[in-house]
Amino acid sequence: MVKSSRKTKIPEPTIERLPLYSRPLEELMEADVPVVSSETLAKLCGVNPAQVRKDLAYFGEFGVRGVGYEVANLLKEINRILATDRQWKLCIVGLGNLGSALFENQNFKRRGYIFAAAFDSDPAKVGRILPNGVVVKHPKMIEVVVPKLEIEIGVITTPPFEAQRVAEMLFSAGVRAILNFAPIQLRSPECCIVENVDFTVNLENLAYHLAKLH
Amino acid sequence: MVKSSRKTKIPEPTIERLPLYSRPLEELMEADVPVVSSETLAKLCGVNPAQVRKDLAYFGEFGVRGVGYEVANLLKEINRILATDRQWKLCIVGLGNLGSALFENQNFKRRGYIFAAAFDSDPAKVGRILPNGVVVKHPKMIEVVVPKLEIEIGVITTPPFEAQRVAEMLFSAGVRAILNFAPIQLRSPECCIVENVDFTVNLENLAYHLAKLH
Repeated sequence: MVKSSRKTKIPEPTIERLPLYSRPLEELMEADVPVVSSETLAKLCGVNPAQVRKDLAYFGEFGVRGVGYEVANLLKEINRILATDRQWKLCIVGLGNLGSALFENQNFKRRGYIFAAAFDSDPAKVGRILPNGVVVKHPKMIEVVVPKLEIEIGVITTPPFEAQRVAEMLFSAGVRAILNFAPIQLRSPECCIVENVDFTVNLENLAYHLAKLH
Repeated sequence: MVKSSRKTKIPEPTIERLPLYSRPLEELMEADVPVVSSETLAKLCGVNPAQVRKDLAYFGEFGVRGVGYEVANLLKEINRILATDRQWKLCIVGLGNLGSALFENQNFKRRGYIFAAAFDSDPAKVGRILPNGVVVKHPKMIEVVVPKLEIEIGVITTPPFEAQRVAEMLFSAGVRAILNFAPIQLRSPECCIVENVDFTVNLENLAYHLAKLH
């Protein structure tokens, strides 16, 4: 058993699994379930129970010995660690099908990620008013809009050949992190973070497991 | 140093990182780079070099001692393990913005994931001919089309309240794996696999790292 205290440094892989735990915990809380066992939580997340116990050992004080974890307190602590107890301002660049889908994603807003600006280089789209009242602007306005609205995170959904240039515009305007959906690996300056999202990685995981099943 | 041979069982977390390595390896191969060091590969993938060395120790025979890894052979072996050396037939259910974006994703096709069918319950969309010649059908046709075309993987991009029902239709028609983009955790029968994709998890990772930087 890992000794646990609030001051223990939580390892990176555990941190990366925390959002997985927070989803079912939210559902349990909505259903007024006060305590959950590691077996149930594991099943709800699709993680093995030993992993759940190991990860949540870092939150030992919320474990009720032999019973499980206090749902409300565990969720609160996870949200504090993941910094989801505050709002983040985002902008999106590229309003094709994917960009529009992300912009309209209700989960983002519910979790505190607010799209405060949207950019597209298509003249037919510039000036359009989006459902939340944001007006689409040309990417040349990034350097003005990002610092003015104090936007911290940029989401890129442009064609691949535009993505690196857009990333550099965002960084020099003050964005500190980018979530990139363009099918290209973006490079970032030392001070900043890029997370590249590639759906084919999910498909390859599925295909690998399917190939094993056959 | 982990002793390596082709027969060593490769652990799950390593398997899950393999797609990350294959992307930069493809770029290196296109650029005619024959050998890559673990440091360079680590930098290109955003993984730490010790992790790369540990993972690729399972592919020891492609390591050139003190120099690096043979790009072409390493890539070939990764693709064999991930079963990307074959094609997979997919169908998609839900042709909103996200569904359309995924259907048109050129990377899927390039990696052997072929959308062979598309379903949407909107009468205005049924009968529409998509760019690759696929005709949009009503979801009630799933039970006929999936077995006929031998579709193995389903992609769900419906509203959340329809997703579980659609998943059950897909499974009973013979689909073995589902990639789910609807914001709801889907349950699956024992024989089948569901991977739930949630972009807010990526945002939470970014926010966590940003909060640490400040």
